[in-house]
Amino acid sequence: MLGLTMAELTVGQSAQFAKTVSETDIYLFAGITGDMNPAHVNEQYAGQTFFKTRIAHGMLTAGFISTVIGCHLPGPGTVYLSQNLKFLVPVRIGDTITAKAEVMDLDEKKNRATLATECWNQNGEKVLTGMAVVSPPRAPKS
Amino acid sequence: MLGLTMAELTVGQSAQFAKTVSETDIYLFAGITGDMNPAHVNEQYAGQTFFKTRIAHGMLTAGFISTVIGCHLPGPGTVYLSQNLKFLVPVRIGDTITAKAEVMDLDEKKNRATLATECWNQNGEKVLTGMAVVSPPRAPKS
Amino acid sequence: MLGLTMAELTVGQSAQFAKTVSETDIYLFAGITGDMNPAHVNEQYAGQTFFKTRIAHGMLTAGFISTVIGCHLPGPGTVYLSQNLKFLVPVRIGDTITAKAEVMDLDEKKNRATLATECWNQNGEKVLTGMAVVSPPRAPKS
Amino acid sequence: MLGLTMAELTVGQSAQFAKTVSETDIYLFAGITGDMNPAHVNEQYAGQTFFKTRIAHGMLTAGFISTVIGCHLPGPGTVYLSQNLKFLVPVRIGDTITAKAEVMDLDEKKNRATLATECWNQNGEKVLTGMAVVSPPRAPKS
Repeated sequence: MLGLTMAELTVGQSAQFAKTVSETDIYLFAGITGDMNPAHVNEQYAGQTFFKTRIAHGMLTAGFISTVIGCHLPGPGTVYLSQNLKFLVPVRIGDTITAKAEVMDLDEKKNRATLATECWNQNGEKVLTGMAVVSPPRAPKS
Repeated sequence: MLGLTMAELTVGQSAQFAKTVSETDIYLFAGITGDMNPAHVNEQYAGQTFFKTRIAHGMLTAGFISTVIGCHLPGPGTVYLSQNLKFLVPVRIGDTITAKAEVMDLDEKKNRATLATECWNQNGEKVLTGMAVVSPPRAPKS
Repeated sequence: MLGLTMAELTVGQSAQFAKTVSETDIYLFAGITGDMNPAHVNEQYAGQTFFKTRIAHGMLTAGFISTVIGCHLPGPGTVYLSQNLKFLVPVRIGDTITAKAEVMDLDEKKNRATLATECWNQNGEKVLTGMAVVSPPRAPKS
Repeated sequence: MLGLTMAELTVGQSAQFAKTVSETDIYLFAGITGDMNPAHVNEQYAGQTFFKTRIAHGMLTAGFISTVIGCHLPGPGTVYLSQNLKFLVPVRIGDTITAKAEVMDLDEKKNRATLATECWNQNGEKVLTGMAVVSPPRAPKS
């Protein structure tokens, strides 16, 4: 249960996670965070907005990036240092979102990896982009 | 159900939201995002890490910022454009997190507000900082 | 709150439980177990499989058998010893599943009951079959 | 998003998944399946049983096996054919369960793999054992 160490990472390496976003996901996320913005949980209100229907919280989509980084690249043992997020396109109920992280830079002295992160929907539209900086797990001392 | 328009915002204005993070919050967040990193859901593993116990997903804490912005400042109708996040201190089960957003800059021409965002725990330690850029709701045409 | 004791069970006795499986059921089950197999949570992927859409986890359906045994036959106080499962037909969102357990054999010396267990959908198709062995509750000492 | 094909599997290959079982997991599982057996959701009742406290549903623990098989070995695209389960030791709230599947036999003609499956707790006690038969994903036609 240990992810990839700095020595095991290479620039260009990438990993993905994908999920169809359900109404349940949005409602539970609203319950956890307290973000009851009507754009997320009020169809009557949301139907009159520019987006025409309820949309997912941007941070829910951002959570899929955390899944890629925490579970796959670099994976367990990674310390998440920072993340920039640009929210580009709203995510609607039923959209299938793919999150991808790709290693852009490796700083061995500081044990830091920079990853380009992005999410897109089933139509290939980028819904979220950004950059993550993480500290990959260190190999256990022998 | 309409938040504050550009004309109603002033630099220095702020809003907060606070919640005690439960094991349930973390487990549901893991289920929604698929982030089953053992640091979040495996106490046996987590007990052997630097943090000594399971910790919350950073994006869960970041979700509280979204709550402040989407529900209070500027509130409903706001379009979330971007968010920078620095994860400083881990959040443990039972920690009470306060999220705050404060207006730093207002660009009336672009209808954009920049907010300083931060979260701290019950001991006053900053656990997360960053900046948000949002587009406040426009007043309904009369 | 005590189920049927060995003396109260007869061969041929049966009980049922039925529920329509929702997307929420599948998503929560994925979150509890960590089983984010795209067949369960990714409609875009699942649409290209033989099953054409997302399907429920087999163990979710098997859980309905546990409901019949633990709540009805023999009911509370039963110790679940073993269960064999054959997964025959996939369960889709919206399917109504009936789970049935029927007493096949009673071993009074060992205090063990063997039950035939099966689940079918709204079209009468068997989706899961198997056998359970349980230890029914013992009567309280008087 | 395709797991290991028959050609990529070898006897002795194994994979694991581990999670600390929370009260939330048990309660949500009870809600999904309808299994409201007081042994799972009634502490007053459960405190007077042999197990002294509420225990997890056996099928919840069995779900972790499904996670290993569906997500890792063989992984996405696998068709789950059958599973035998022996429930050996109860799982309590807070127990950390590791599920493991190990390839025991490969039948290339039938495209079937047999896996030994077991779960143990943080004390190394086996809580569940059994055998799974699955049909690994077939390589896409080229």
